[in-house]
Amino acid sequence: MATLASMIVAFDADDTLWHNEDQFADTHRAFEALLAPWASADAVDRRLFETEMRNLSRYGYGAKSFMLSMTETAIEISDGEITGDRIGRILDLGRAILDRPIELLSDVPDVLDALAHHTLMLITKGDLHAQHARIAESGLADRFWRIEVVADKNRATYANLLERHGIATDEFVMVGNSMRSDVLPVIELGARGVHVPYHVTWAHEADHADHDHDVPRLERLGDLPDLIAEWT
Amino acid sequence: MATLASMIVAFDADDTLWHNEDQFADTHRAFEALLAPWASADAVDRRLFETEMRNLSRYGYGAKSFMLSMTETAIEISDGEITGDRIGRILDLGRAILDRPIELLSDVPDVLDALAHHTLMLITKGDLHAQHARIAESGLADRFWRIEVVADKNRATYANLLERHGIATDEFVMVGNSMRSDVLPVIELGARGVHVPYHVTWAHEADHADHDHDVPRLERLGDLPDLIAEWT
Repeated sequence: MATLASMIVAFDADDTLWHNEDQFADTHRAFEALLAPWASADAVDRRLFETEMRNLSRYGYGAKSFMLSMTETAIEISDGEITGDRIGRILDLGRAILDRPIELLSDVPDVLDALAHHTLMLITKGDLHAQHARIAESGLADRFWRIEVVADKNRATYANLLERHGIATDEFVMVGNSMRSDVLPVIELGARGVHVPYHVTWAHEADHADHDHDVPRLERLGDLPDLIAEWT
Repeated sequence: MATLASMIVAFDADDTLWHNEDQFADTHRAFEALLAPWASADAVDRRLFETEMRNLSRYGYGAKSFMLSMTETAIEISDGEITGDRIGRILDLGRAILDRPIELLSDVPDVLDALAHHTLMLITKGDLHAQHARIAESGLADRFWRIEVVADKNRATYANLLERHGIATDEFVMVGNSMRSDVLPVIELGARGVHVPYHVTWAHEADHADHDHDVPRLERLGDLPDLIAEWT
């Protein structure tokens, strides 16, 4: 690829700029406990994941979808016996996810500072309202030239974003924790992707961890400025 | 305003291009019936609307938010007594909203044809995933230069859209059924708004029906091309 003085560096948000999936893990434990009268923790987790996958095309991603899938799973596993009282506690678990204060990953402000001479974007998928609320709360919104919340992150999504913002593939790099959503579709388009794994990965995102591509992978986001410097 | 040969004509989607709120009305009746053991229809409606307004800043707009608010209201009204079985039927009501086939309002394809020499946009608020699914199903996506799903439709939202798409206020007109979301914020920015009322209005959108502005109001979308022709 050509060497460019300045690039468009786009970041994923959840588990790339701030913590997210670790709380879902805590929520899973609490959900298992609420359904303990009817099924084992393993069975609860398996049924919940099945419900989420079944609902994905109808509900899309995000905490509200997760709340609806938890509720549906609880009704199914209990054969309709579960009381409204207990379902209320499931809704409480979901609200706790939405209301959780934002916690930036370490190095985030420094990395954005170090890359400020590039054009920065934020591209996140999930629930439009919840993501915008998180972005506002993060205090990082002003760092980004453009902020895009998309319904899904596939090759077509990225192609559309590059087209509408007039970005050439050889000046674009996408940085994120998900091979499936942040890295592979971008590489397929001929742009650059950088994988920065998070310590917890949702099963749905984890099934693309193995791949043939020779993808740059960083232990920590703090290593990103040096990598970008090699390309510019 | 200046006379322009061509304008940017932006349309709202729900209840402007296709039917939406009429189904919510049906769902309200079914929800009232499910909670009849605990409260009158009027009380159910009032409590549901209160729940929706309380949840708006947390959940945003859309069918999934509505499903969560219905569930929460049912638990509250029944004092936690309602069974999972009955909550499952509430989720069914929500899924029926999401799965409903799209039904265009009359004249829509003809109006878009008649305005094809202008630049057309679609600007809708609500759930990102559900709205994109509806747009795809409508078969209208190719008619629009840009499609924007936004979390809310206020003055700041429109200002941001005009800025990022390089649109001047005097070439922009927004067409929709909601004074609050489609018309007033656009007029405040100095652009044009056209009100095309739908036969049902959600209470939250209805509280801006009275206003001081001298807003063009059409009985039917089919009258839009003539109005736009007067401006160009």
